[in-house]
Amino acid sequence: LLNYLTAGESHGPQLTGIIEGIPSGLHLDIDEINNQLKKRQGGYGRGNRQKIEHDQVTIVGGVRHGITLGSPVALVVNNRDHAHWNEIMDPVTPETPENTLRKVERPRPGHADLVGGMKYRHHDLRNVLERSSARETAIRVAIGAVCKQLLEQVGIRTAGYVQQIGPVSTDDQLELEVTKIENEIANNDLRIVDQTKVDEIHDLIDKTRKDGDTLGGIIRVVVDNVPAGLGSYISWDTKLDAKIAAAVVGVNAMKGVEIGDGFKAATSFGSQVMDEIDWNKDDGFFRNTDHLGGFEGGMTNGMPIIVKAAMKPIPTLYKPLQSVDVNTKAVKKANVERSDTTAIVPASIVIESVVAIELAKALTDKFDADNVSRLQEQVAAYRDEIKHY
Amino acid sequence: LLNYLTAGESHGPQLTGIIEGIPSGLHLDIDEINNQLKKRQGGYGRGNRQKIEHDQVTIVGGVRHGITLGSPVALVVNNRDHAHWNEIMDPVTPETPENTLRKVERPRPGHADLVGGMKYRHHDLRNVLERSSARETAIRVAIGAVCKQLLEQVGIRTAGYVQQIGPVSTDDQLELEVTKIENEIANNDLRIVDQTKVDEIHDLIDKTRKDGDTLGGIIRVVVDNVPAGLGSYISWDTKLDAKIAAAVVGVNAMKGVEIGDGFKAATSFGSQVMDEIDWNKDDGFFRNTDHLGGFEGGMTNGMPIIVKAAMKPIPTLYKPLQSVDVNTKAVKKANVERSDTTAIVPASIVIESVVAIELAKALTDKFDADNVSRLQEQVAAYRDEIKHY
Amino acid sequence: LLNYLTAGESHGPQLTGIIEGIPSGLHLDIDEINNQLKKRQGGYGRGNRQKIEHDQVTIVGGVRHGITLGSPVALVVNNRDHAHWNEIMDPVTPETPENTLRKVERPRPGHADLVGGMKYRHHDLRNVLERSSARETAIRVAIGAVCKQLLEQVGIRTAGYVQQIGPVSTDDQLELEVTKIENEIANNDLRIVDQTKVDEIHDLIDKTRKDGDTLGGIIRVVVDNVPAGLGSYISWDTKLDAKIAAAVVGVNAMKGVEIGDGFKAATSFGSQVMDEIDWNKDDGFFRNTDHLGGFEGGMTNGMPIIVKAAMKPIPTLYKPLQSVDVNTKAVKKANVERSDTTAIVPASIVIESVVAIELAKALTDKFDADNVSRLQEQVAAYRDEIKHY
Amino acid sequence: LLNYLTAGESHGPQLTGIIEGIPSGLHLDIDEINNQLKKRQGGYGRGNRQKIEHDQVTIVGGVRHGITLGSPVALVVNNRDHAHWNEIMDPVTPETPENTLRKVERPRPGHADLVGGMKYRHHDLRNVLERSSARETAIRVAIGAVCKQLLEQVGIRTAGYVQQIGPVSTDDQLELEVTKIENEIANNDLRIVDQTKVDEIHDLIDKTRKDGDTLGGIIRVVVDNVPAGLGSYISWDTKLDAKIAAAVVGVNAMKGVEIGDGFKAATSFGSQVMDEIDWNKDDGFFRNTDHLGGFEGGMTNGMPIIVKAAMKPIPTLYKPLQSVDVNTKAVKKANVERSDTTAIVPASIVIESVVAIELAKALTDKFDADNVSRLQEQVAAYRDEIKHY
Repeated sequence: LLNYLTAGESHGPQLTGIIEGIPSGLHLDIDEINNQLKKRQGGYGRGNRQKIEHDQVTIVGGVRHGITLGSPVALVVNNRDHAHWNEIMDPVTPETPENTLRKVERPRPGHADLVGGMKYRHHDLRNVLERSSARETAIRVAIGAVCKQLLEQVGIRTAGYVQQIGPVSTDDQLELEVTKIENEIANNDLRIVDQTKVDEIHDLIDKTRKDGDTLGGIIRVVVDNVPAGLGSYISWDTKLDAKIAAAVVGVNAMKGVEIGDGFKAATSFGSQVMDEIDWNKDDGFFRNTDHLGGFEGGMTNGMPIIVKAAMKPIPTLYKPLQSVDVNTKAVKKANVERSDTTAIVPASIVIESVVAIELAKALTDKFDADNVSRLQEQVAAYRDEIKHY
Repeated sequence: LLNYLTAGESHGPQLTGIIEGIPSGLHLDIDEINNQLKKRQGGYGRGNRQKIEHDQVTIVGGVRHGITLGSPVALVVNNRDHAHWNEIMDPVTPETPENTLRKVERPRPGHADLVGGMKYRHHDLRNVLERSSARETAIRVAIGAVCKQLLEQVGIRTAGYVQQIGPVSTDDQLELEVTKIENEIANNDLRIVDQTKVDEIHDLIDKTRKDGDTLGGIIRVVVDNVPAGLGSYISWDTKLDAKIAAAVVGVNAMKGVEIGDGFKAATSFGSQVMDEIDWNKDDGFFRNTDHLGGFEGGMTNGMPIIVKAAMKPIPTLYKPLQSVDVNTKAVKKANVERSDTTAIVPASIVIESVVAIELAKALTDKFDADNVSRLQEQVAAYRDEIKHY
Repeated sequence: LLNYLTAGESHGPQLTGIIEGIPSGLHLDIDEINNQLKKRQGGYGRGNRQKIEHDQVTIVGGVRHGITLGSPVALVVNNRDHAHWNEIMDPVTPETPENTLRKVERPRPGHADLVGGMKYRHHDLRNVLERSSARETAIRVAIGAVCKQLLEQVGIRTAGYVQQIGPVSTDDQLELEVTKIENEIANNDLRIVDQTKVDEIHDLIDKTRKDGDTLGGIIRVVVDNVPAGLGSYISWDTKLDAKIAAAVVGVNAMKGVEIGDGFKAATSFGSQVMDEIDWNKDDGFFRNTDHLGGFEGGMTNGMPIIVKAAMKPIPTLYKPLQSVDVNTKAVKKANVERSDTTAIVPASIVIESVVAIELAKALTDKFDADNVSRLQEQVAAYRDEIKHY
Repeated sequence: LLNYLTAGESHGPQLTGIIEGIPSGLHLDIDEINNQLKKRQGGYGRGNRQKIEHDQVTIVGGVRHGITLGSPVALVVNNRDHAHWNEIMDPVTPETPENTLRKVERPRPGHADLVGGMKYRHHDLRNVLERSSARETAIRVAIGAVCKQLLEQVGIRTAGYVQQIGPVSTDDQLELEVTKIENEIANNDLRIVDQTKVDEIHDLIDKTRKDGDTLGGIIRVVVDNVPAGLGSYISWDTKLDAKIAAAVVGVNAMKGVEIGDGFKAATSFGSQVMDEIDWNKDDGFFRNTDHLGGFEGGMTNGMPIIVKAAMKPIPTLYKPLQSVDVNTKAVKKANVERSDTTAIVPASIVIESVVAIELAKALTDKFDADNVSRLQEQVAAYRDEIKHY
């Protein structure tokens, strides 16, 4: 079954990912993986690290002549910044006074620092933050880009974008066609569909940066052309929306997730939020609304998937919060590790990626996914079958 | 490791659950399991089925003389209503015209009916709804009640209650002590802490029922006295908040989940939503706020866990929505299966239960959980260790 | 995915099993399940308990009118012997001097008794042996019988039989057709194919019983008509032979497993043990030998699967071994719990069952297994495809 | 929980492994990993490839200054031979006539070639064999070497060696002390304990090579100082011996596995093969024999673990077997890919490695394994507890 592991520290030599279960025969477009990596590095509001890194994937396993073999795919994204940290983050050389500089001893509230130290018995919290850092999401984006290409082979398209930054909401009209969304968000550096909000948000980010403060936001992922019947209702852990919820909250800084109308559905009447069932000869069964975000009973229902994710503001403030030195117990300002004002723009790519991964899992779970052409044949036959249900 | 499976249809003979990984030596209070089952059946706004069922658990494995053996625990909750359905839901006797009455052929929007039929090639959608029905949550509550008792053995307490019903919000002041919450919600039939809202919500439910409509709502679960360091940041699927998110969305009708401030955090500034770090000699490290709902980096941070769940209104309306007969393709009103006006009150117990299950998993993952007294020794030693970190 | 849990103690009220992932639409023959249960109770060399039990399965979930729903299937096998143990094995009533009679305090070498007591902090080792007892395999046989019926729907047939009892080997000529094996083993009460050995083995068992000793043996499972390509070589834990090895050793008393020629292959030359490749227009690729037992690279290769299992003799001797009282530390003879002289005959059904379960997992992993007729279509198309490879 | 993935093709750029769940604070001796890699490359009977490769591990994640961080550990072993294959095995450049030379179209019986081609729709079987090759075991040895070091931190020692090569058995006297075994096998290039058999086996290998044939053999792994109570009897998939069986059969070319006396136990009487229970004040409970190989009820029982693995001869013969061209269907001799006469010596390291991995899993499952010093404290306390049971 499709599953993956990642490894690598923020300033270590590289990020490594292995994904198992990608069918053989997939023509993998490496430029497209790098394109997703580039999008993750972009966006108004990012700090200086992104000027150092220009993430490029290297494929070191599972692919030959640009085509997947069916064996596990191994991906590497090098950390260019490691050049400045090669002693401090050396995997092998024993500790010396010189290579243990830049200790982190004043844990940053909102990060894993303090609890990570307690749990793993670290007293230099760099040993925690190097892994808990969102730098790791670069390799998840690379893995997600592979899954995205797999989904596209059976016509499933994904788009992740920014719906709200701090207090400013941007999209009142819900667009459900991925191509249209992609066209709109390409026109600005905020990945928002509503071009009229760009200036207001730029100003907000600028002001927030000056204040030494940070911003979060809300991300939306839309997936269209998904066949009905991925996931199942038979047990809680077969529900695909539940798996997507885990994948979303499993991304750094995410504090909430919604499917379709989400919390708004909770405050409405039943007659307002169900998607009535219709049928015609050409399309079979269909709906005219999508309040439920493409899910009924934990299964895709053929309507576009709509997932929203709530990202808390970045916890590293240049106007630092109160902390306590873990060794001396003195009350101090928290450490400051180089950071962004907001990472909502790149996070929209990360959330898109993890949703794509979960969909690729569900797809390959249901169908024979040994080979991509056999998979295409099966999905086509199944789409036809349910159209004539 | 702690894991479980459930089986059983809504009008079948019984619900069955097996949970593996419960430590030996746990004194299991069966009345307390039944008490949770009773709470799940209660609440203003429920329909008539609850008058038929008086759920009682029967323990058929893994327990001897009221004490767990360490072997898998098997639980049964009989469906009293099965008496009225014993032919239609007979597991063994082949189909006859008589025992296939009460077919469901007009799928209810918002339920698994239609997609379930397509996926599993059913044309009597009763074959879907019997399992997708929220009746299954009764056995999950029984399993959760076992986990809740396990948690209590190491001092961890859980409370699930109703925060909002339809448009009416009920709790502006956030109470984080489980005992106080329990005391308040025992005073009304809505499981809300704010007694002043009871009449308003009763009226709302009455009016909604008369309109043939339904209501959803928002549930909050609070867990206090949790040690820091359950879950981990090292990989997305080790994050405990992500697992809780899956468990919550894995409950019927849930369309959203929040940890701590959730979506509100997404629209605030970083300086407003982090929980600053403090320390004193008696308690070690602590926080004075809990915006992050007890989680940093996917790990518990020692503050109370706060989880919110958004439940959509029940999709079965007595004023039914449009549907299409799956066999004739005629546009018709959806089938009506006996249902509630709102199930938000019982759902608060279900959400509490699944959160308790995930916490019990995390607890038994981290510690040696073969035997409950050894587990207690370990948790006590660990609590002491991190207090002196 | 297809997975299952079981619960229940040897003298508790019942054994319970839940299996998830069985496709919808499977016509389940309950008599056939009971037939497997009956075979498991038979065989020369069994003790008196089998005269008490007449195992019958009850289906309590996942099946309606004899047809699976796609939801988890719940099975129950009642312990008739529980009537004699209902106080001692009462799940609920607290301990009393009366209901804690028949304590086991002298652990039997070769059983889980002693280590189970240490691990789970039990001092009445009945708390261990009630679960570690091979009584549990009755429910695994029931689950296996469901899987066996699923396999038969796509033409895959399984047979488990006895190859050796103690020092007496019985099958020099290897038969690979399941139907022929089934015919032969039905002719005796030892489940052996070589009728000429029946008397010799009866005598051996009789003598061993008189001596207060016990016997083990060797079991063979043959599976024919398996399509090539179940399992995979891409990672160790995708190899189907590895999963079968775990399932076999996961059965009580099994100390070894072989695929095909097994240990004999290890002592032969390469030119002797490979199955040369041939091809003709009608059959596609095929082999004329089956030294590798139907597996290459962890995948089925289209030849019959051959699995052998080594069962140690039953550790409960009527001429008991040395033990030590866990409470007093006095050296004593081990407890004697009612037992058989040999359980090799029933064990052959258990091994067949667990092999069938693993094959059903592999089958449903590879193909779309939501519905049995869709599964049949897919398997037929795949068989045809690889025939024309 | 401790788990891992590997990726990489035999002639691709590198082998990659990620292992998750290694505790923080483990001082990792890289030389010791390389030492295990070197042992895997040695042994009489290997072919020429080992003269090209001098495997060295590179750590690219999860370790800082030689100490594990608790985050996933990423390991790389470069394929030096890739220099000769960089076009043919290029991951990115599209296919050209030049870079698709050295096609494999005559599948080798006994390898994954043919079935892999059918399953994954490959027609150049190099796309199969590059992954199914035992080259992959190099990275499993590296991962196993990390686990071995973890085990050593709690006093558990492992040794893997050769018991039999082809028809020649070498160890009649069973040594159960790892240190003594290590001393003996260091004295020859066959990893056998019985020095008197070295010449005979050298001659056998030489003659077999001249004949263009190959040899398999039998491997034994001994693990001493294991605490009682790893694994459990409560369910089949909690049994540690079952997991070890899967890990062993999951290694290329393994066709059988035994625990303790294995198949010999199956042919003996019960009174001959149980390990009687004894007790003294200093040691607590103990045994004087180890027929059951350190396992009762799927749990370690405190005696040394004894695992045997049967390795079939290498299927690539220089005197090739019959095959069929997958494209033309002409009967031909199988392809010859550079290979060894026997790989039993390196395989003994591989089997040791996978046993070490499973033990490390069982250890970290049972105890709090976040940090190695806390783990040591827990294991010590537990060892003391069960000594005084």
